[in-house]
Amino acid sequence: MIRTSLISLCLLSAASGAMAQPSLILTENGVDAIQATKEHPPLFAKAYRQAETRFARSIRDGLIVPVPTDPGGGYTHERHKENYKIIHDAGLLYQFTGEQKYLDHAEAYLLAYADMYTDLPLHPERKNQAPGKLFWQSLNEAVWLVYSIQGYDAIRDDLSPQSRERIETDLLRPMAEFLSTESPETFRKIHNHGTWAAAAVGMTGYALGDPELVERSLMGLDKDGTSGFLAQLDQLFSPDGYYTEGPYYQRYALMPFVLFGQAIENNEPDRKIFEYRDGILLKAITSTVQQSYGGKFFPINDAIREKGLDTIELVYGVAAAYSLTGDKGLLSIAEQQGVTVLTGDGLNVATSVANGDAEPFSYETMILSDGPDGNQGGLAILRMGKGDDAQTVVAKHTSQGMGHGHFDKLALILYDGGQEILTDYGAARFLNVPSKDGGRYLPENTSWAKQTVAHNTVVVNETTHFDGDWERAQESWPTIRFFETSDKVNIVSSTISDAYPDTDLTRTSLQISADDTRAPLLVDVFDVAAPKRSTIDLPFYFSGQLTDTDLPLQRYNARQTALGDKNGYQHLWTEAVADTPDGHSLFTWLNKDRFYTYHSLTSDAGEARIVRIGANDPNFNLRSQQGIMIRLKDSKTARFISVFEPHGTYDPAQEFTVESESQITSLQSTHKNRASLIRIEFSGGEALVIGLAEEPSDKKHTLTHDGRTYSWTGFYKIFRE
Amino acid sequence: MIRTSLISLCLLSAASGAMAQPSLILTENGVDAIQATKEHPPLFAKAYRQAETRFARSIRDGLIVPVPTDPGGGYTHERHKENYKIIHDAGLLYQFTGEQKYLDHAEAYLLAYADMYTDLPLHPERKNQAPGKLFWQSLNEAVWLVYSIQGYDAIRDDLSPQSRERIETDLLRPMAEFLSTESPETFRKIHNHGTWAAAAVGMTGYALGDPELVERSLMGLDKDGTSGFLAQLDQLFSPDGYYTEGPYYQRYALMPFVLFGQAIENNEPDRKIFEYRDGILLKAITSTVQQSYGGKFFPINDAIREKGLDTIELVYGVAAAYSLTGDKGLLSIAEQQGVTVLTGDGLNVATSVANGDAEPFSYETMILSDGPDGNQGGLAILRMGKGDDAQTVVAKHTSQGMGHGHFDKLALILYDGGQEILTDYGAARFLNVPSKDGGRYLPENTSWAKQTVAHNTVVVNETTHFDGDWERAQESWPTIRFFETSDKVNIVSSTISDAYPDTDLTRTSLQISADDTRAPLLVDVFDVAAPKRSTIDLPFYFSGQLTDTDLPLQRYNARQTALGDKNGYQHLWTEAVADTPDGHSLFTWLNKDRFYTYHSLTSDAGEARIVRIGANDPNFNLRSQQGIMIRLKDSKTARFISVFEPHGTYDPAQEFTVESESQITSLQSTHKNRASLIRIEFSGGEALVIGLAEEPSDKKHTLTHDGRTYSWTGFYKIFRE
Repeated sequence: MIRTSLISLCLLSAASGAMAQPSLILTENGVDAIQATKEHPPLFAKAYRQAETRFARSIRDGLIVPVPTDPGGGYTHERHKENYKIIHDAGLLYQFTGEQKYLDHAEAYLLAYADMYTDLPLHPERKNQAPGKLFWQSLNEAVWLVYSIQGYDAIRDDLSPQSRERIETDLLRPMAEFLSTESPETFRKIHNHGTWAAAAVGMTGYALGDPELVERSLMGLDKDGTSGFLAQLDQLFSPDGYYTEGPYYQRYALMPFVLFGQAIENNEPDRKIFEYRDGILLKAITSTVQQSYGGKFFPINDAIREKGLDTIELVYGVAAAYSLTGDKGLLSIAEQQGVTVLTGDGLNVATSVANGDAEPFSYETMILSDGPDGNQGGLAILRMGKGDDAQTVVAKHTSQGMGHGHFDKLALILYDGGQEILTDYGAARFLNVPSKDGGRYLPENTSWAKQTVAHNTVVVNETTHFDGDWERAQESWPTIRFFETSDKVNIVSSTISDAYPDTDLTRTSLQISADDTRAPLLVDVFDVAAPKRSTIDLPFYFSGQLTDTDLPLQRYNARQTALGDKNGYQHLWTEAVADTPDGHSLFTWLNKDRFYTYHSLTSDAGEARIVRIGANDPNFNLRSQQGIMIRLKDSKTARFISVFEPHGTYDPAQEFTVESESQITSLQSTHKNRASLIRIEFSGGEALVIGLAEEPSDKKHTLTHDGRTYSWTGFYKIFRE
Repeated sequence: MIRTSLISLCLLSAASGAMAQPSLILTENGVDAIQATKEHPPLFAKAYRQAETRFARSIRDGLIVPVPTDPGGGYTHERHKENYKIIHDAGLLYQFTGEQKYLDHAEAYLLAYADMYTDLPLHPERKNQAPGKLFWQSLNEAVWLVYSIQGYDAIRDDLSPQSRERIETDLLRPMAEFLSTESPETFRKIHNHGTWAAAAVGMTGYALGDPELVERSLMGLDKDGTSGFLAQLDQLFSPDGYYTEGPYYQRYALMPFVLFGQAIENNEPDRKIFEYRDGILLKAITSTVQQSYGGKFFPINDAIREKGLDTIELVYGVAAAYSLTGDKGLLSIAEQQGVTVLTGDGLNVATSVANGDAEPFSYETMILSDGPDGNQGGLAILRMGKGDDAQTVVAKHTSQGMGHGHFDKLALILYDGGQEILTDYGAARFLNVPSKDGGRYLPENTSWAKQTVAHNTVVVNETTHFDGDWERAQESWPTIRFFETSDKVNIVSSTISDAYPDTDLTRTSLQISADDTRAPLLVDVFDVAAPKRSTIDLPFYFSGQLTDTDLPLQRYNARQTALGDKNGYQHLWTEAVADTPDGHSLFTWLNKDRFYTYHSLTSDAGEARIVRIGANDPNFNLRSQQGIMIRLKDSKTARFISVFEPHGTYDPAQEFTVESESQITSLQSTHKNRASLIRIEFSGGEALVIGLAEEPSDKKHTLTHDGRTYSWTGFYKIFRE
């Protein structure tokens, strides 16, 4: 009740102004500041130029409002997408300049849509769920309205009453109803499709001065708070701002959150929406940036690997976050983006960047909890080193992440020297490429990319976690046992017991500074306890060219076959195989200008395979990439100790190569009384000894290795010799 | 005689000064200018900082002059390389600052070498030919002297007579003799090893005031001009400045030419060495730059693909060339290099760059003739478009290029949009990586990289050009039939008749601007006339991910085999195969943000294969890469028409994809009366018709295609419909 009356008050005051006063993302204050700026700073000027260019092209081409016929990527689809940008940009340019031509063009487009919209049937290319009218999915329709309503808001007060009436009655209100009351299933969804719909309807409510639409958006169709924007803010993000589908979908979901959040702030500041749930909107923005390396998002789950910080969603996000926090680290992200948004916030960012205020963004070691209550595992990000080349370990100890999640419990990614070293495949999809299944997710996304064997984690008996059933997978998640960060050691350890029936999977990953002059080591300990003897595989997919191994590999020289026939194994060629009689093996590869050695030590003798992605891929949908797979063939309990060591320099331009060979001379392990010692010795004679307990308790442990006794209290300790 | 007396005069005058007066690359004028510069411009400051850092590190570490034991890449090898840089840099820093510590350190190092050198045996790791003492090869020894003599030259006049005597008597003279009179075979070689030796000995002659050494270097061991520097200038470069081994070796060979050339110029300007042979030294420098794309050299022959414009050889080259020509385009190359040399020329470059004088380097369409007389074929470089993204076609119509040459007559590379699209493998070698056969050329360099099938050119009966015998290959070369460049069309055509016995191979490549709004097309016509029915293959290795084909490919899904068992075919996996019953096929791939469609039209029905490099590669020495191979199985004469069409945009960041499908709707050909028409029709209905005669004469040709008659005079004409 109180909420409703607040809204009414604000809307009343907004409507009482005599001049066009935009009030969604661009505000009167923003317009004043932009008009007062004699020379636009570069990032803003670029956005301004883009808008002018789009407008000029549209004036040249004339109105183009085709009857909707094509699916995603097709002509009418792309055209209607272009049109909402034209309406948006023309409206904003009208605000900045007061020039009638901009208003006229936005008005003409909106009237053209008003002529068509009410009589439109559902889209002919609609899929089973949530069809649109202008587009095959109602999702796109919501995006259309989120953009167009901003354009309309910018011209509304200066339109004739007749035009206003037609546009609102025949287009905006019907569309808002279509997206809410007429698509109740989507509108009630706690899902990014629901957020887009809520943002579209709510922003329309503010623009049209209709508190009912706003209320519906905030509190859900039934206005009881079980759905709608606030429920989405409560449930879609973890308390740390992690979005359960992962950063690729997070940045997409972010857009309606940021835009509607700003519209709420600008219209009803008393709601303190940016303080809602301990500032969850802001956390959602900054945690998205944290989930990136070298400008690209961590490609976990169904991610398009090319997506990064320069997406428009994050351009809006950074502008909003900077206005709220003044965090100068965000300015360096804006610099990378190379552009900003045409709002007061955007001008603010661009001006600060032009003033040289940017500071490096503070990428941190952290664990982002998953789940609405933050108790469904989490994404651990371990960082060591400075700047863009800092080594970064991503330990995916999260929950499933719904239908776009991959079956890769406890998976791992390693970045170093600016490169992705241990890789995640991401999605098998070529966005909007018609010849690749219309740009949709490819069959190989299911048969390969989602399968456990496609990831850097353990596979038991060549089957996929949770048998590949995402709804079952959704029911459980890893337990974070331990997470600690210090100057010289970052560590995370988690366990999950039902990825396979009655099987404990426990992974402990340590990022350790061995020596100030070297890149950090990644020491990874994977323990498996199965109910019966099993085949246990641990693959690592790497980026680079193999330069060395200590195994007598049997290479499949003139003939090679697929490794298996299901669960992703059918997509792997076996290129070479060797036994590992003493459990040891070593592989070195070259990535760009640095070498990486993978030292493996397993609890039992086993096999090592070099594999390559690409078998059973009739349409060449998969990328060709190598992996190393260690297999224990008949183990009930198994431990895989993996040490990843960056070393040396390869500089063909200056013609020098140093330390192309591993500087680790031995890797040994001792296990007793539920505690272990892992000893890593270097060529100079110095050594790192890692004491590791099975349980992260305060208990004291004492172990002897090679005549020396090591004692420690607690989960782990690093001894330097 | 006249030459000798000139030298004597100059040396006399140099020796008469009272102060240390360097006179090799750094000169007195240079020192004055450098001392007069209050704030070093950035490129110079960087080089200066590097020298100071090297010196400081060396002072910290103390003198380290190990007994030579290790081969290339090993510890003593790398140490002696570091030492010559220390001597060089310390000498120069002494000149700039007059600080005694620099002189002392260079002197101490030189004396330490003087203590050791005369008693040194030949290097224990020497190979069969041309051993050194400090290094396994005398080549490295010559490089040592080229650097160290510059350091010595910078301190000589200020040394005590005793030190001077010891260094010259026990080190420099013995080394100069070792490299010349004691290594006559190398010193007489018309080869870059010979040039390094000549430069080392000649520069030592100038520094020590010994005209005999200079004369020996210029005119050869026998002082008759049959060998030595001038003979090398006459014979190693074509009149256009092309070095027959290709750009990778050209930039390496360049260093002694540039350095000794400058030393000659500074000591004996009357020789006008930079005017010698119509300015061949300058042409050699600028033609090296021309043989690059995106900062990397064209990777033809035994090239390390990473090598590019930023190599130190070209840093010297650009500084020298800019001083000679004032060409501001060279400054943009210096900008890319990010550093310059510590000489007057270097300061000049750095100052001009800091003043903002840099202009884009003028990359041009050209043919660089090969052979000392310029009549042994040539390297055609076709360019269209602006800036770094200009499309560039490299047509390798050169001669063999000696022992480092590949058997790839008439091979082709295509660059577009800043990327290498149709690729050349380069060398199979990991420079200085001990685990990769000591960093030497790998066995797969011979079994794969040099073989014809590894290149984008025709293979007859699965054998290699000239049966893989480079000395036989060295005897012949293609005949350039035609080369022409215009605004809208660049064309080159060549033929060779003895790559295979009695077999004519003729390749005509046209780069055509089809439309101002599109990237140019590459239209490539390869004609083969064999003495009997043969299997004729034309492979194209491409960089990217296949997205489309119009062939019903039979994919080798769960099992694949090597394509052959010798001549490189053993290294190819067949991934898929299809018949091409009407001679047509189409393949589209995605490279970064652009699509490429390869349209093939052959004179007969045949087969198309998707192949991948990597079979029979026991040590993973080869890079994995795909190719498309068109095969005609039983043809006496064959024509392969290949059209490469860049199209569309793939932008996952902005989530749009346009024109992912080819815009060419048909490719047809008519052949009659020793002339042909090739008709390329586009989706908009417009067409390009290429009239092509068999002989590049002025004859008139008339052909009819599809009811239309086309007439033209001469070798070719483009009709636009």
